[in-house]
Amino acid sequence: MSVRIIATGGTFDKEYNELTGELYFTKTHIKDVLTLGRCKLPVQITPLMLKDSLFMTDEDRENICKTCLKTKEKSIVITHGTDTMPATAKYLGGRIKNKTIVLTGAMIPYKFGTSDGIFNLASAMSFAQALPYGVYVAMNGKLFTFDNVTKNKKRGVFEVEK
Amino acid sequence: MSVRIIATGGTFDKEYNELTGELYFTKTHIKDVLTLGRCKLPVQITPLMLKDSLFMTDEDRENICKTCLKTKEKSIVITHGTDTMPATAKYLGGRIKNKTIVLTGAMIPYKFGTSDGIFNLASAMSFAQALPYGVYVAMNGKLFTFDNVTKNKKRGVFEVEK
Amino acid sequence: MSVRIIATGGTFDKEYNELTGELYFTKTHIKDVLTLGRCKLPVQITPLMLKDSLFMTDEDRENICKTCLKTKEKSIVITHGTDTMPATAKYLGGRIKNKTIVLTGAMIPYKFGTSDGIFNLASAMSFAQALPYGVYVAMNGKLFTFDNVTKNKKRGVFEVEK
Amino acid sequence: MSVRIIATGGTFDKEYNELTGELYFTKTHIKDVLTLGRCKLPVQITPLMLKDSLFMTDEDRENICKTCLKTKEKSIVITHGTDTMPATAKYLGGRIKNKTIVLTGAMIPYKFGTSDGIFNLASAMSFAQALPYGVYVAMNGKLFTFDNVTKNKKRGVFEVEK
Repeated sequence: MSVRIIATGGTFDKEYNELTGELYFTKTHIKDVLTLGRCKLPVQITPLMLKDSLFMTDEDRENICKTCLKTKEKSIVITHGTDTMPATAKYLGGRIKNKTIVLTGAMIPYKFGTSDGIFNLASAMSFAQALPYGVYVAMNGKLFTFDNVTKNKKRGVFEVEK
Repeated sequence: MSVRIIATGGTFDKEYNELTGELYFTKTHIKDVLTLGRCKLPVQITPLMLKDSLFMTDEDRENICKTCLKTKEKSIVITHGTDTMPATAKYLGGRIKNKTIVLTGAMIPYKFGTSDGIFNLASAMSFAQALPYGVYVAMNGKLFTFDNVTKNKKRGVFEVEK
Repeated sequence: MSVRIIATGGTFDKEYNELTGELYFTKTHIKDVLTLGRCKLPVQITPLMLKDSLFMTDEDRENICKTCLKTKEKSIVITHGTDTMPATAKYLGGRIKNKTIVLTGAMIPYKFGTSDGIFNLASAMSFAQALPYGVYVAMNGKLFTFDNVTKNKKRGVFEVEK
Repeated sequence: MSVRIIATGGTFDKEYNELTGELYFTKTHIKDVLTLGRCKLPVQITPLMLKDSLFMTDEDRENICKTCLKTKEKSIVITHGTDTMPATAKYLGGRIKNKTIVLTGAMIPYKFGTSDGIFNLASAMSFAQALPYGVYVAMNGKLFTFDNVTKNKKRGVFEVEK
């Protein structure tokens, strides 16, 4: 069993710029999380983009979709900003049928020490190995199918749409 | 979906005693990990024992087994010392058939900041939700069935027995 | 020997707002740093304000000055944003002669785990105990007198003005 | 101004051995602390030994003493195990008169994330720069002279002997 992780940015990978006091991207920290977790599972990382998900376009989503389709792994985790994670999940869910794809992210950057990113990435990697083909969102211990998930921005949590 | 976590001790829960310079137990830190992971999944915690797994007896294993059998949740995670985790998995695997039970632990204490415990607990919680009934070991990203797992103590990793 | 710490905000006390993705203030974390340092020195904390130092006015500086003058401790540490720390140091240096006052801060928020704030606060507290009366800036291991310090904003370091 | 740091081991530098579950030494972490503190002060590090201070002999103390005497810096910090730190301070205090020497250490290893080591090292470095010649102990915010300090092992704190 081998898992492909596609990094697209989001809060998970944001850092604090000490010179400007602003948040920014330099690189993905997925490998750091795997090292911390002493991960022994074969994992391939694709650093596809580093985007705040508010700025993610359908062109970006098509790019993610193509990357999922052409990767040889059947188990795929996508790290993604939380704001439009459900939108990307829906985009992929309508187009990919023969892989297990789990989107995840973080409410607080990995680099800030108290991030939920480690928990979420580990959770998504297990779901990607264990679940049947389909597109899912895994956040903060909960699992959602692509066609029934929304982010409650007031409360900062993911919920079923009802 | 709701998960029961049964804490039995192990490296995961060890702490550093500043007065004596030795490692010891005071309480389980499972709730701290769930808080860090901003876990929104309903979770019940049973702090069953705080044991170095080298000192775990068959009486202890029977105690764990009974606790698994009588809990109403079908998805169970057991935190356990790594040294005899495979032995406890085998004990439970021969006795419990109608639940999904995932044993996990840590190579380094949660309190030491660089622990794999967060990664492992999140991983185990997802497997416990997604896998069919059975008894499993989830460590460092990898999944093992109860009847084919051993700890390579020289290398500090879990492997299939072959 | 007892030290007074006056908190005025700055990067030291900034936090990440998980709902908005922005940095903001909720409270000072000075007590957390003292707890981490297992500080046994008698310390009094005055949470005076929580300001980004770019927005600090001469009215604020007068407020800080009065607080320094009226406190009974002779050793005072002021946590302050880095951008205008030299300006506040000069303001106080011209007005207070019979106390040892050390300004310090952080290049990265304490809450982000990899902050220089612990190092800087401990450093400032020692200087405040050991130095003769005067107003100083202590940042990243270096000590400056109030009348010869500037922040090199390009490099993110404090330097003598020359 | 330049500071010499002489590492002798102690809890400060202990690590957790994931294979054996025991504490051990691999190297000093002083440089990591200076990096975390974004230290800009010129610092020279002498990794002299890595000893639990319970096993420190008078030969070791003589070794430390000679190293202090021959180093060109006038400001010296010594990281040292807490159990016999007062004994080493007394040894040095009777032999070195023309340098400022500050002994410090940690109640919990630096690598365990919640260590007082960062706080203590920063504190000692400032005292070493600011105090007159003499031998001192700086622990947890407090300063002691070499001839009036003892470790209260029951409470895990340093006190004046009275």
